[in-house]
Amino acid sequence: MLRARCLFRALRSCSSAPCPRHGLSSKLSVRDALGSQNTSGERVKVQGWIRSIRSQKEVLFLHINDGSSLESLQVVADSIFDSRELAFGSSVEVQGQLVKSPSKRQNVELKAEKIEVIGNCDAKAFPIKYKERHPLEFLRQYPHLRCRTNVLGSILRVRSEATAAIHSFFKDRGFVHIHTPVITSNDCEGAGELFQVEPSSKTKISEENFFNVPAFLTVSGQLHLEVMSGAFTQVFTFGPTFRAENSQSRRHLAEFYMVEAEISFVENLQDLMQVMEDLFKATAMSVLSNCPQDVELCHKFIAPGHKDRLEHMLKNNFLIISYTEAIEILKKAAHNFTFTPEWGLDLQTEHEKYLVKHCGNTPVFVTDYPLALKPFYMRDNEDGPQHTEVA
Amino acid sequence: MLRARCLFRALRSCSSAPCPRHGLSSKLSVRDALGSQNTSGERVKVQGWIRSIRSQKEVLFLHINDGSSLESLQVVADSIFDSRELAFGSSVEVQGQLVKSPSKRQNVELKAEKIEVIGNCDAKAFPIKYKERHPLEFLRQYPHLRCRTNVLGSILRVRSEATAAIHSFFKDRGFVHIHTPVITSNDCEGAGELFQVEPSSKTKISEENFFNVPAFLTVSGQLHLEVMSGAFTQVFTFGPTFRAENSQSRRHLAEFYMVEAEISFVENLQDLMQVMEDLFKATAMSVLSNCPQDVELCHKFIAPGHKDRLEHMLKNNFLIISYTEAIEILKKAAHNFTFTPEWGLDLQTEHEKYLVKHCGNTPVFVTDYPLALKPFYMRDNEDGPQHTEVA
Repeated sequence: MLRARCLFRALRSCSSAPCPRHGLSSKLSVRDALGSQNTSGERVKVQGWIRSIRSQKEVLFLHINDGSSLESLQVVADSIFDSRELAFGSSVEVQGQLVKSPSKRQNVELKAEKIEVIGNCDAKAFPIKYKERHPLEFLRQYPHLRCRTNVLGSILRVRSEATAAIHSFFKDRGFVHIHTPVITSNDCEGAGELFQVEPSSKTKISEENFFNVPAFLTVSGQLHLEVMSGAFTQVFTFGPTFRAENSQSRRHLAEFYMVEAEISFVENLQDLMQVMEDLFKATAMSVLSNCPQDVELCHKFIAPGHKDRLEHMLKNNFLIISYTEAIEILKKAAHNFTFTPEWGLDLQTEHEKYLVKHCGNTPVFVTDYPLALKPFYMRDNEDGPQHTEVA
Repeated sequence: MLRARCLFRALRSCSSAPCPRHGLSSKLSVRDALGSQNTSGERVKVQGWIRSIRSQKEVLFLHINDGSSLESLQVVADSIFDSRELAFGSSVEVQGQLVKSPSKRQNVELKAEKIEVIGNCDAKAFPIKYKERHPLEFLRQYPHLRCRTNVLGSILRVRSEATAAIHSFFKDRGFVHIHTPVITSNDCEGAGELFQVEPSSKTKISEENFFNVPAFLTVSGQLHLEVMSGAFTQVFTFGPTFRAENSQSRRHLAEFYMVEAEISFVENLQDLMQVMEDLFKATAMSVLSNCPQDVELCHKFIAPGHKDRLEHMLKNNFLIISYTEAIEILKKAAHNFTFTPEWGLDLQTEHEKYLVKHCGNTPVFVTDYPLALKPFYMRDNEDGPQHTEVA
């Protein structure tokens, strides 16, 4: 029913080649091991990459990470297990007993009974160094290895969690998920510069005949979704979107993921804004509760100011102001704008930023835009030269 | 953290224009109304499109559908509510009491107290006719209306449900969801003909300089996922995939959605096959339990033989046979193949179909392929000129 193909392959790259083996211990992810309530010596097997190694006279401490969480699992082993192959970056399988840790730094540790190196790692050739914090610019050179660092691992776990939360949010509210087409001949409301799609020159098909019309990568699924909301009432899409804008800013990527939703029978703008507010809050809550350490790391190293703002957003209602109020606030502002705010002109990024700050760093909806600023099909407020829209 | 933009717009198309209005009755979807346990006269409001209308002397029967389910809700109204605008295809809002239906055909019906036509429908201009079963070829002409038919509505609800089930399956098992790039410069294992991507000739950017390298639409996220499984152990992607193959068959679309997963530290092929079997079964079960009527309709009108096969699949374990066994079965077959089966040659679609039928219409994994048939990086069984792969 679903046009999908399913391919599974075991990984065969260096330092993680799978080994056919059987064991009686139950296999646990590092995340599950760390969260385990059963620390009375349960026999388990944990696999992952060595993040640190500390060799003492009689004891060997390893930290194992498998990407399931930011935290690593401490493995305590007899020093007879020590070997040159047990090095930072190597992949290992450890079997042993899950016990309560005597240290306060972790609840659980793994008392190793067997350690097997699955793939060893040449520390000299491996670009990621033990205990070093690598700048993101440096890691850019190693797209195949950079996700083994804390920062990039955290960002992708957060992204995965947020993606799942967005899907759940809409599903729980009865929205039908629509895969709007990626290749399309419409350019929506002229949202941006288009990418054109043609069969590669290497193919045997004549280019003119493939789609019959010029085909582009989608800039928005809006038009398709609007049609679908005329059959399913509540629909959403969450797919890749494209802009052929050669910008290196945070605002414009050639390829990005966008959430779009359409609802029929909406009674007022407030209801729509409430859905948006709920979506932001539900997603943020889900990320915070499912990967708190990852968020903490981002707040510490990537976006230091964001923690308070996030908590502030979760505690407070989003604000709604009209376009006219917004212009009044901007005109009274003791701020030097590049673009002078004027009724009838569109709001610029600098204006939006000022408004959010002015409203106490809470997300702000700006409604009742001038009709002339918006596309022809936008709903007229029927109260004069105004118009409703959400910013 | 997630590069996503969120746009909400109310639908403004014909026969579904939203009307600002306030009501005290709680708003229910048709699905929730039909499943309601509270039929002691709860006051509710239901919105949707009229699917049928039957006017009797004193009573008016309407069936309202809002796309939340295949079934419509029966509305019973006093004949004073009758009007020319209450016609097949019109969108309405009905307020009234949810009561137990005296008829055996439904549990619940809505006793109307107020009926408002939100958007009326010109029966002559509307291409979908009351009580008519329209061929799919006819509906192709009306992509903006066809999802209001039962068959297309059911297919998209099933697809939405299956999509959600696939996401849940992987999330519940701790897989990290990766959005592998859609625009890419690699063509994976040469999986198919490529589409090339360039800024549209209308843009101001010189085409040569946009990506620096020739850019294509992805044929598979495999290579990116393999790298990611070296950091997160278990990863999956579920995104659009493209093939520039000008084929009108069921097997090759220019654009389709594909599930791919990669797992590190896999101990044997059996574990991988088990994940695949579990995925198929979990998804099928979820669709069957969440939209049984939609599946029933598909079995009735689209794929009549599939119901038994689906139940058979759910009850039985998938089979595993070796490539050599498969060739032996095919050679013994009293079937006239276009391609004669021969050890060392790849299996054709006709062979795969025969094998599945031979094995009692249960999905079959074919393992231990000849090494020469598979890409260079596939894992050698180390038992001679053989190779493991899943078909």
